[in-house]
Amino acid sequence: MLYPHSMTVRHLVACLVLVPALCATERWGIHEIVLPGPSTGNPFVDIRLSARFQFRNRTVDADGFYAGSGTYRIRFMPGELGQWTYTTSSNTPALDGKTGAFTVTTPASANHGPVRVRNVSHFAYEDGSPYIPIGTTCYAWVHQGDKLEQQTLATLRTAPFNKIRMCIFPKSYTYNANEPVYYPFPRTASGDNDLTRFNPDFFHHLEQRIADLQSLGIEADLILFHPYDRWGYSKMPPEADDRYLRYVVARLSAFRNVWWSMANEYDLMKSKTMADWDRFFRIVQESDPYHHLRSIHNGPNFYDHSKPWVTHVSVQSSDLEKAREWVQQYHKPVIYDECKYEGNIPQRWGNISARELVRRFWLGTAGGAYVGHGETYLDPDNILWWSKGGALQGQSPPRIAFLRKLLESAPPEGMDNLATYYLAAGQPGRYYLFYMDLNQPAEYTFDLAKNATYKADIIDPWEMTITPIPGTFEGKFTLKLPGKPYQAVRFQKVNQ
Amino acid sequence: MLYPHSMTVRHLVACLVLVPALCATERWGIHEIVLPGPSTGNPFVDIRLSARFQFRNRTVDADGFYAGSGTYRIRFMPGELGQWTYTTSSNTPALDGKTGAFTVTTPASANHGPVRVRNVSHFAYEDGSPYIPIGTTCYAWVHQGDKLEQQTLATLRTAPFNKIRMCIFPKSYTYNANEPVYYPFPRTASGDNDLTRFNPDFFHHLEQRIADLQSLGIEADLILFHPYDRWGYSKMPPEADDRYLRYVVARLSAFRNVWWSMANEYDLMKSKTMADWDRFFRIVQESDPYHHLRSIHNGPNFYDHSKPWVTHVSVQSSDLEKAREWVQQYHKPVIYDECKYEGNIPQRWGNISARELVRRFWLGTAGGAYVGHGETYLDPDNILWWSKGGALQGQSPPRIAFLRKLLESAPPEGMDNLATYYLAAGQPGRYYLFYMDLNQPAEYTFDLAKNATYKADIIDPWEMTITPIPGTFEGKFTLKLPGKPYQAVRFQKVNQ
Repeated sequence: MLYPHSMTVRHLVACLVLVPALCATERWGIHEIVLPGPSTGNPFVDIRLSARFQFRNRTVDADGFYAGSGTYRIRFMPGELGQWTYTTSSNTPALDGKTGAFTVTTPASANHGPVRVRNVSHFAYEDGSPYIPIGTTCYAWVHQGDKLEQQTLATLRTAPFNKIRMCIFPKSYTYNANEPVYYPFPRTASGDNDLTRFNPDFFHHLEQRIADLQSLGIEADLILFHPYDRWGYSKMPPEADDRYLRYVVARLSAFRNVWWSMANEYDLMKSKTMADWDRFFRIVQESDPYHHLRSIHNGPNFYDHSKPWVTHVSVQSSDLEKAREWVQQYHKPVIYDECKYEGNIPQRWGNISARELVRRFWLGTAGGAYVGHGETYLDPDNILWWSKGGALQGQSPPRIAFLRKLLESAPPEGMDNLATYYLAAGQPGRYYLFYMDLNQPAEYTFDLAKNATYKADIIDPWEMTITPIPGTFEGKFTLKLPGKPYQAVRFQKVNQ
Repeated sequence: MLYPHSMTVRHLVACLVLVPALCATERWGIHEIVLPGPSTGNPFVDIRLSARFQFRNRTVDADGFYAGSGTYRIRFMPGELGQWTYTTSSNTPALDGKTGAFTVTTPASANHGPVRVRNVSHFAYEDGSPYIPIGTTCYAWVHQGDKLEQQTLATLRTAPFNKIRMCIFPKSYTYNANEPVYYPFPRTASGDNDLTRFNPDFFHHLEQRIADLQSLGIEADLILFHPYDRWGYSKMPPEADDRYLRYVVARLSAFRNVWWSMANEYDLMKSKTMADWDRFFRIVQESDPYHHLRSIHNGPNFYDHSKPWVTHVSVQSSDLEKAREWVQQYHKPVIYDECKYEGNIPQRWGNISARELVRRFWLGTAGGAYVGHGETYLDPDNILWWSKGGALQGQSPPRIAFLRKLLESAPPEGMDNLATYYLAAGQPGRYYLFYMDLNQPAEYTFDLAKNATYKADIIDPWEMTITPIPGTFEGKFTLKLPGKPYQAVRFQKVNQ
């Protein structure tokens, strides 16, 4: 159990039951109400429970859920500092009309709140600090057992990633033959699912992992559905899909580091229609009181990311030069969550070189978008980072860390695409990051915004070097360049 | 004067005038008839001249042209061995009804005839030997004066190229400020062209260079129009365009190594319409008795290469993965005549690395197409190979030579695209050349045509190494691979 301080469940339980007047929860932490209630019948289906939380003239409604063993929980992520109260509603008297109060305190320094869209195509935490997504992919890492999951967490502790794409359901696919430790629904030995009930152990474990990620400053980009399945979770009837979504949102939405990805490769799930995907989005949108980020990841065919419930464009694509076009088209942030993975497996999607993956990070960045990492090196035990986590073998992570550090020193408004002949991103008149990609000009005439003086650096994204160019520059000027490929040039306004 | 033996003009003149019965021309050489005629008025416009050549029941009509100084010439490239006769036709009695005979002899060993399309998407010389186009680009090399032109020819003597893209008109563009030595039309000091006459010196010089190329085994891919012009040649009226085309075809079509490229970047010539381009194609098609290859090169927009007069698809494109699709679409050979150039100039089209250009050659090859070279390194005297010729500076030519040698040992039917997951070309059951591009699988399961046993090699296109894999292979089998990018795997049927 690695719950961060702000949300120790046992502590929160105590709050309500024993000494409510003393309760305090930090802003964007979790205030949890625990209530005993009926365990007969099917509480997952029979019982409705929610609470209305109130702060001055602001009210927030949050659904509760049955946690098993006659226990019900309502989780709440408060967004305002001060005194909150609540009243529960239920169709069963034991859970209805319960009231309480708690104080929301200044968050710990590492708690910046949930991530929001800012400046059209960028992100920021709710406290205003910029969030620059540098994601990785470990689809099924929470289904690998404690030993490997702890190794994954240890790897993430020093890796450059602040977002992880992960499936809620277990995964059945090449290199992924093992059974999960937990199943989301009660399941008989012969493989029959009871889709009218949930397995609290499954979700409790998942929550632990989300909390683990939160303590590492990592956003959990939760994939709600995916096609790589042998247990039946990709082919549930609509009522089971919808109940699952509501249960997930009720349990997880109070975690500030949760994002909702409707699917991995939604278009490969042949039993779902576009109407299903639209409905899933709307259920999540309506059920989640905090409006966590919502996206959907494609196989061959894009979902229509212009639909209003899509907060950002999550794509599988190797066409990094489309970044700018998609930002312009959708007026939303664009994340290349899957642009192929560093590795050496036979499959084309899993064997690009570290150099190529680093190149794609830079192309996406210079195009005004964001790019995600994944790693697929052959392993005698079939432990490939992309799906199971474990240890990283590749050469791209240090270069991705280098890029992350660079971006963290760029203008907090975000890196807008500013030029296309050679891709450049930044903020006009203040900061330009040109990426020359496979081109190797030995000289180039830059034409930057007037009324500013700039200092310049040559950046080698692979060697991770930043080499200042002597002098300062203004307006239109010609620079000698290294004449080798995959170099970048940075201009920063000199403060005078 | 470097005319090859088979076509010394002075010798051929002697044939007709002095001792016709002894005349002999090798097959696909040039038999030239020289006739004195009127020099008054404007012979370029006033006089029509042609000859009908006859071999048994085959007749070929070829136009003559005014060569200046009261001299008219009719050039003929005979395609059959044996005794030929001819009769001239003209609207002037001095040139009409002249007859003669000559013998066509077995060609020298280096003379394989003109290049034709064969096997849908490939080429062969008319004698049946395969022709594998490995082109380069020196747009304006014939306008640089003898010293540089001789250097270009010396470079070509040891370079891997057997085709060169070259403009008939001089070029005005960045790095191309110099005046040409010759102008195609009489031109006053103040820059007025007499578009009703031609400058015989210009064409005589051009013919010398075409003959120089022929002696080096290089096809001259002649660009008839282009937009980079300050002399007025890109904006001539239709009657001047058409007269120019007919004059060029009359003078040059008997050179077996001539190809017709209607334009470089036709769509950037804003004074021409699509109807103009169609007409140009038809004029060339109808005037050229030998049906030399015809193409047109695009800027941003493709010409419709499915039109019947287009013999092969000549494209400017960096999208090498389209090769297979275009071959299938057009059922014609596809040549990426411009996929950007090795170099270091500021312009994106002229500064890809040698590694990237070599990669593109391999991608095109594995896609069942052909790729062309160009080189643009900054030079203190602005002598960039791509336009002026001179010396090669780059690192791609030896690798292109390596590829050419490899292809020359491949099946003579040509390299058809055979696989797309990793691109492969060859002939099914006999020869497979897989190119893994940026992918770096450490192992891969190949599935080759049954009923054959193959030997295998790992090929490194950059290091120019061919490393045999021990053993032989059949059907479906898994090979360990180097696990690094830009490698190729070759399978050749073992002859048993």
